[in-house]
Amino acid sequence: MHNPDQSQDVSAGEVLAPYLHARAADFLRGLRLHGESGSDTAGSEEAARTLRGAARRISGTLHTFRPLLDTAWADQLRTELAWLSGTLALEHACTSRLVRLVDALSRLSSGAGPVPAARGSEAAGLTVGAARAGALLERQLTLARTRAHSASLQALGSARFHAVADAVALLASEVPLGPMGSAPAVEVLDGPAEVAERRLLDAVAALPLTRAAHPYNADALAPATGESQDAPWHQTRLLLRLHRYATEALHTGGEPDAVLFEAARALDRHRDAAEAASAAAAAARTPRIAPATAYALGVLHADQRHEVEASRFAFQRAWRRTTAPVP
Amino acid sequence: MHNPDQSQDVSAGEVLAPYLHARAADFLRGLRLHGESGSDTAGSEEAARTLRGAARRISGTLHTFRPLLDTAWADQLRTELAWLSGTLALEHACTSRLVRLVDALSRLSSGAGPVPAARGSEAAGLTVGAARAGALLERQLTLARTRAHSASLQALGSARFHAVADAVALLASEVPLGPMGSAPAVEVLDGPAEVAERRLLDAVAALPLTRAAHPYNADALAPATGESQDAPWHQTRLLLRLHRYATEALHTGGEPDAVLFEAARALDRHRDAAEAASAAAAAARTPRIAPATAYALGVLHADQRHEVEASRFAFQRAWRRTTAPVP
Repeated sequence: MHNPDQSQDVSAGEVLAPYLHARAADFLRGLRLHGESGSDTAGSEEAARTLRGAARRISGTLHTFRPLLDTAWADQLRTELAWLSGTLALEHACTSRLVRLVDALSRLSSGAGPVPAARGSEAAGLTVGAARAGALLERQLTLARTRAHSASLQALGSARFHAVADAVALLASEVPLGPMGSAPAVEVLDGPAEVAERRLLDAVAALPLTRAAHPYNADALAPATGESQDAPWHQTRLLLRLHRYATEALHTGGEPDAVLFEAARALDRHRDAAEAASAAAAAARTPRIAPATAYALGVLHADQRHEVEASRFAFQRAWRRTTAPVP
Repeated sequence: MHNPDQSQDVSAGEVLAPYLHARAADFLRGLRLHGESGSDTAGSEEAARTLRGAARRISGTLHTFRPLLDTAWADQLRTELAWLSGTLALEHACTSRLVRLVDALSRLSSGAGPVPAARGSEAAGLTVGAARAGALLERQLTLARTRAHSASLQALGSARFHAVADAVALLASEVPLGPMGSAPAVEVLDGPAEVAERRLLDAVAALPLTRAAHPYNADALAPATGESQDAPWHQTRLLLRLHRYATEALHTGGEPDAVLFEAARALDRHRDAAEAASAAAAAARTPRIAPATAYALGVLHADQRHEVEASRFAFQRAWRRTTAPVP
């Protein structure tokens, strides 16, 4: 699994350290960007994206290669990084959810413009409702985003965050290893990486992929096979990410696997669409909304659950290519 | 195109007459069934189905092979059969639309039963709305069906209908041919059948089949590519039917083409889903409905438009098999 040119002399720590050093440097760069961005929205988004990406990779590496590291240190840092990523991710999630829903509403009601009244009444009805639904979602998600933004700023100014930043700054130059960390890489690195891969393969094997391969199975909209069955897909998304990061750590400098990346993107889209569908359903429970608004939110909910189904289809297609023999 | 064992001696009329005689006999059997069914719903549905099927086939044959027939007679009978089929079809359409929508609502809200409140609130919300939406649709479509039923009964008791029945009774023993009707079948039958086929091929060629072959293209929900683009598919459905009936007439006793039948079923489903989606949208415009009801109708509308998209996918798949070389 690891780089074939590693000689017997290279220790596990010597393979992991450069990867962790580089990710820690990314983290610190994100932090610097954040400090410089001020009120520049694009800059502060870029800073948050860099921080989140680095935090996820460090955390994933600490998780997968825990047996080779100072476990008490690794567990402590992982907890803190999880807190930080979670806090930072919330604002991003609100923004992208709003963009996704407003785009979908515009797609669902566009072209419904000036048409003869008899044929266009349906589409025109949706246009009015869609505009109101869009305004309602914008209000609700902007409020949530503002709250998440305040929480992010507060987190980034907290003593807790400064402690995380100090720990990562240390990691940029030194990785606290456990006793196994000095063992030869060829002997101890494959095991943890294979565990991560095995957990992913098991999770994928439990997914209803045959069903997902059948387009228009209408599974994602029916509660029994739909929303209540999202969890295994979300879990697979996390395991696929851990597997990708483990591969990254062991193949530093290698090309990322395009098909695995495509599969990961499909699961990201699955998660985003599922959460957008929930947001549409939640908005529909707002008291005293007009029936036209509720109707548009129902169409939107179904549309996003349809996207969930489409993502499952896309995932199984990408996944099949990862395991299929090269033609 | 016609039966290869037709010798040079067989006239076009001698090929068409047995087919038209048989369909006329079907029509008269449907009429007898109707008289016997009384208040037996299943019996009267069976009678109406037989009448409709026979009327469609006679009408289609008169249309396609018009050049070989007494054209004044053929045009007159076609007009009357169109009136009759249209009247009889309405009741059936209301019934099947209601069944389709109630089934879809039950699928969309089933399994939403006792689940933990936090996870199940979405589904539970849909269950309440779905029940109300179902009751609303049932009320509206039952009313429409009752009206259609009265109209059918009235039509079947009218002098206009008795004139149609007399014309069909005559057709059971004699087909009024034109001058070309006595020409050799091998010389004059293929032309009209090929015109019917050509019109179908042209209509299919104009459909966005490549797009339809791409699952989850989300075309059917967007107004610009969705409802406003249903018409060419509906038109193709009618042309496919004419082509199938022409083939039936020329290959009496032969096996029906299974793939063409599958393609026709996909277009039937396309039409049914499109009309069900319209019914859901129309119900959502009922004044003073609860937002939960409107929301469920929105979900239902999107679900049925999704079925429209799925039917387009199914059609292109079946169609590809009709034209693909046998493996």
